[in-house]
Amino acid sequence: MTLDRRTFVQSSTGVAAAVAGFPYVRRRQDDRRVRMGLIGIGDRGTGTLRLMLRRDDVDVRAICDIDPEAIARGREQLDEAGVTDYGVYDQQEDDFRRVVERDDLDAVLIATPWEWHAPMALAAMRSGKWVAVEVPVAVTLEECWELVETSEETSMPCMMMENVCYRRDVMAMLNMVRDGLFGELIHAQCGYQHDLRFGFKFRPGVEFGPNASGPARWRTQHSVTRNGDVYPTHGIGPVSNFLDINRGNRFVTLTSTASKARGLHQHIVEHGGADHPNANVEFKLGDVVTTVLSCARGETVVIMHDTNLPRPYSLNFRVQGTKGIWMDDLRSVYFEERSARPHRWEEARPYQDEFDHALWKRYTSDAEGAGHGGMDFFVLHAFVESVKRRVPPPIDVYQSATWSAVSALSEQSIALGNHPVVFPDFTAGKWATNARDFGLSDEF
Amino acid sequence: MTLDRRTFVQSSTGVAAAVAGFPYVRRRQDDRRVRMGLIGIGDRGTGTLRLMLRRDDVDVRAICDIDPEAIARGREQLDEAGVTDYGVYDQQEDDFRRVVERDDLDAVLIATPWEWHAPMALAAMRSGKWVAVEVPVAVTLEECWELVETSEETSMPCMMMENVCYRRDVMAMLNMVRDGLFGELIHAQCGYQHDLRFGFKFRPGVEFGPNASGPARWRTQHSVTRNGDVYPTHGIGPVSNFLDINRGNRFVTLTSTASKARGLHQHIVEHGGADHPNANVEFKLGDVVTTVLSCARGETVVIMHDTNLPRPYSLNFRVQGTKGIWMDDLRSVYFEERSARPHRWEEARPYQDEFDHALWKRYTSDAEGAGHGGMDFFVLHAFVESVKRRVPPPIDVYQSATWSAVSALSEQSIALGNHPVVFPDFTAGKWATNARDFGLSDEF
Repeated sequence: MTLDRRTFVQSSTGVAAAVAGFPYVRRRQDDRRVRMGLIGIGDRGTGTLRLMLRRDDVDVRAICDIDPEAIARGREQLDEAGVTDYGVYDQQEDDFRRVVERDDLDAVLIATPWEWHAPMALAAMRSGKWVAVEVPVAVTLEECWELVETSEETSMPCMMMENVCYRRDVMAMLNMVRDGLFGELIHAQCGYQHDLRFGFKFRPGVEFGPNASGPARWRTQHSVTRNGDVYPTHGIGPVSNFLDINRGNRFVTLTSTASKARGLHQHIVEHGGADHPNANVEFKLGDVVTTVLSCARGETVVIMHDTNLPRPYSLNFRVQGTKGIWMDDLRSVYFEERSARPHRWEEARPYQDEFDHALWKRYTSDAEGAGHGGMDFFVLHAFVESVKRRVPPPIDVYQSATWSAVSALSEQSIALGNHPVVFPDFTAGKWATNARDFGLSDEF
Repeated sequence: MTLDRRTFVQSSTGVAAAVAGFPYVRRRQDDRRVRMGLIGIGDRGTGTLRLMLRRDDVDVRAICDIDPEAIARGREQLDEAGVTDYGVYDQQEDDFRRVVERDDLDAVLIATPWEWHAPMALAAMRSGKWVAVEVPVAVTLEECWELVETSEETSMPCMMMENVCYRRDVMAMLNMVRDGLFGELIHAQCGYQHDLRFGFKFRPGVEFGPNASGPARWRTQHSVTRNGDVYPTHGIGPVSNFLDINRGNRFVTLTSTASKARGLHQHIVEHGGADHPNANVEFKLGDVVTTVLSCARGETVVIMHDTNLPRPYSLNFRVQGTKGIWMDDLRSVYFEERSARPHRWEEARPYQDEFDHALWKRYTSDAEGAGHGGMDFFVLHAFVESVKRRVPPPIDVYQSATWSAVSALSEQSIALGNHPVVFPDFTAGKWATNARDFGLSDEF
C-alpha cells in the first residue's frame, strides 16, 4: 500500500485544505488493516505494543529489540494476544534494517532510545514504510532536515507520536482557542518539569549507562554530553497547535539559558556515596533550562526543561490572549467576558467539559485504560487511521522536525552564551498557507 | 545630622559585615526623630504620608507636588494629624529643589512618576539628604550609574522602597532559603503580572497623559515609547535577596523577549470606540515581556512583565533548589526531605508560619492597616530606622540600581533582537565579598 507520490503530494496540501473548510466532515473510510512492525520494546514500546494488540485494525508482524528481556516481554504479549505469525529481530544493532525491509509491512513504529529515532525513521521511509516515531523524532538539526527531505523524496509520511497533543484538557483548550475564547493569542508557556533523576521513581538508583535498567540505560547519558532543552515536544507540540505553527505561523527565533548542573551529582552522592564512581561524572545539562521563542505572528513562548531536581510533575502550560488566560498548574482559567468575578481565577474543569473535543467524546471508552490518561490511545489511533486512509498524519514530518529542533537550537543558543538563533523553516515557505490539520474532526 | 563621609564609608562595609556574623544582634539604638520631606502625593505618596504620620519618630516638614489636588490631599492629612509646621511646594516643576535644599530636613521620600525619581534623588543626595525613592529608582542605565556614583561621592544613602521584599511570605521564604530548606538554589522566577490597562481598575477609561487621572497620567506613556520590562523590581528585589545578589553573587547576563502589543489598543477600541483618538496610538510595549538572567553562581532567573492583558494578579514567584521548590501561584511548596508525599505539593502556609520572620513577629500590630498587606509599614520603617541609626539602609543604592537596571537592559536586549547583554556590576567588584544586609534582625 505504498502511496503514489503525486497522490501524496496532493493530499498533503489538498486534503488538509479541504478538510479545514469543513472541520467535521468525515474523511474517507478505509477498512484495511495496517500491518506493522515495532522497533524497541522498552518501557514505552511495551505500552504501545499493548495498545496495538487491542486494536482490531492492526496486525503486528515484527518486533525488534536487542535486549533479551525486552524481546521476552514482546513475545509474551503477542502470545497472550494469540498472535503467531510474527518475526523477531533481536540479534544485532542493525537488525532494524531487516524489519523495515520486510515487504509485508505497511508501517513501523519506533520506540527506541532518542539517538536511534532518526536513523531508523530514515531507513523505514527509504523502504517505503509509513513511520511513527516516539518523541523526539531527532536529536540534531541535520537529522531534522534529513527526515523532512527524505519524507519529501520518498513520499512516505513520518509522524512523531506526541501524545500530549491529545490530552483531554489540552484538546479542550485547543477548541477554546479556535472558538476565540482567548481572543488573539499573545503568549504561551509549557515545559517538561518531571523529576527523572536516574530513570523513573520506581527504579531508584545512581547507575546509568549499559548496566542500568530502564531509561537510565541511555537517557541519562544525554545529561552528560548535552546542555539544552533535550525534551521539548510534550510542551511545544500542544502549544504549536494552539499557535498554528506551520499552519499560518512559525517560530522565528529562540534564546535559551541553562542554570548550573547540581541535581544529578547531588543525587549520586546522597544515594551512592561520595566515593561512587558516578560521583566523578561531570554533568553538562543545566538543571533548569529556559527557552524563549518568538513567532512570526508576534507571540512569545517560554519552554522550561527541569528533570534533575526534586519537584512535582508539571507540563507548565499557559495560554494567554487578549481575552483570557489558562494556567495548567492552577487548573484555572480567566476570561474577561465570561468569568464571574473580575481578575479572579475560576476552575478550568467546567470549560474542559463544555469544550470537550469531538475525538474524546467519541472515543472515551476506547481510550480507557490506555497509557497516560488515555492520550496514548489517540496518538496511535491517529497514526493507524492515517495509514488506513492514506492521508497525511495530523502530526506530519514538518511538525515533528520543528518541535524536535528546539533541542538542537537550544543547545546552540546556550553554547553561544544565550545568543538568539534563527529557527529554520522546514516547510520551505508553506507555513504561511498551510491549512490547519490537527483535531479537525471526530475521526482521528 | 549629615553623616561624616569616612564614617559612612566604614559603616557601609564594616557594619554590614559585623551584623552578618551576629544576625540577631541589636543595632545601635537612636531616639532621634527623622525630619522628612515628601515629594509626590499621588496614589502612592498619599498612602506613604499616612504611614509617616502614624510614626512617632518622623516629623513631616515639607510636602511637594504640582498637582493642586495632590497638595490638597497632603494638607488634609497633615491638618488631621495636627501638624502645623510644614512647608508646601506646589508652584513649579523644579520646586523639589527647594525641598531638598531645606537645612532642617534629614531625609526626603520621593513618590513621583518614574522619570522624576533619579533627578530628584540626585538633587537630594547632593544636598546632603538621605533619600528614599519609590520603585524603580531610575529609568535609564545612565541614571543608575549616576545614582551609585553620587551616593559614593556624597556619602548619602539612597534606598529604593521595594516593599515586596517585606511581604510576609516572601520574608518567611527568605528564612527558609537561608536555613537551607531549598538546598543550593538553582532557579527563581518572578514578575509583575497585573492588569493595569489605563490606570487601575477603579479608574476605568481609555484616556492617558496630562488629562487623565492617576497613573494613566504618566505611566501609560511608558507603553508608547518603551519596549522592555519597565517594572521589574517587585519581583527581582525579593529574588535578589534569595540569591544573595551583590552579597556574594551577581547578575551577569540578560536576554529579553517581547510579544506583540495588542492589549491597550484593543482596550481603547472596545471602551472608547475605533474612532477614539487614542485608537491611533501605536504602543511599543509588548503585552508580555520575558526576561532571563544568569547569575555568577550559576542560577537562572525568569522575570515576566504582563500588565496590558486581562488576568488575575500574580508576582509569579518560584524558588527552586536542590532540595525543594516554592510556587507562589500555587501557594505551595515541595521539600524532598520534609514533604509527606513524594512528588506532591503541600500548602506553603504552615511553613510560612513556622519560618515567620522576626521582623513580622515583632511588628505585626504596627503593620496592621498599612498598605499592601502590611509590607508598606516595613519598608518605611527600614528607611526611618536606618536614618536614625546612621547605618546603610537594607536596600542600598547598589541594590536599587541593580534591580532598576533590569528595565534598561531588557529594552536593550529586545532592541537588539533578544541579544544577550552584559549586566553591569554597580559594586565595582564588592559583590563578591559584601556580607548580607537584609532581614538579619528583628530591628528593621
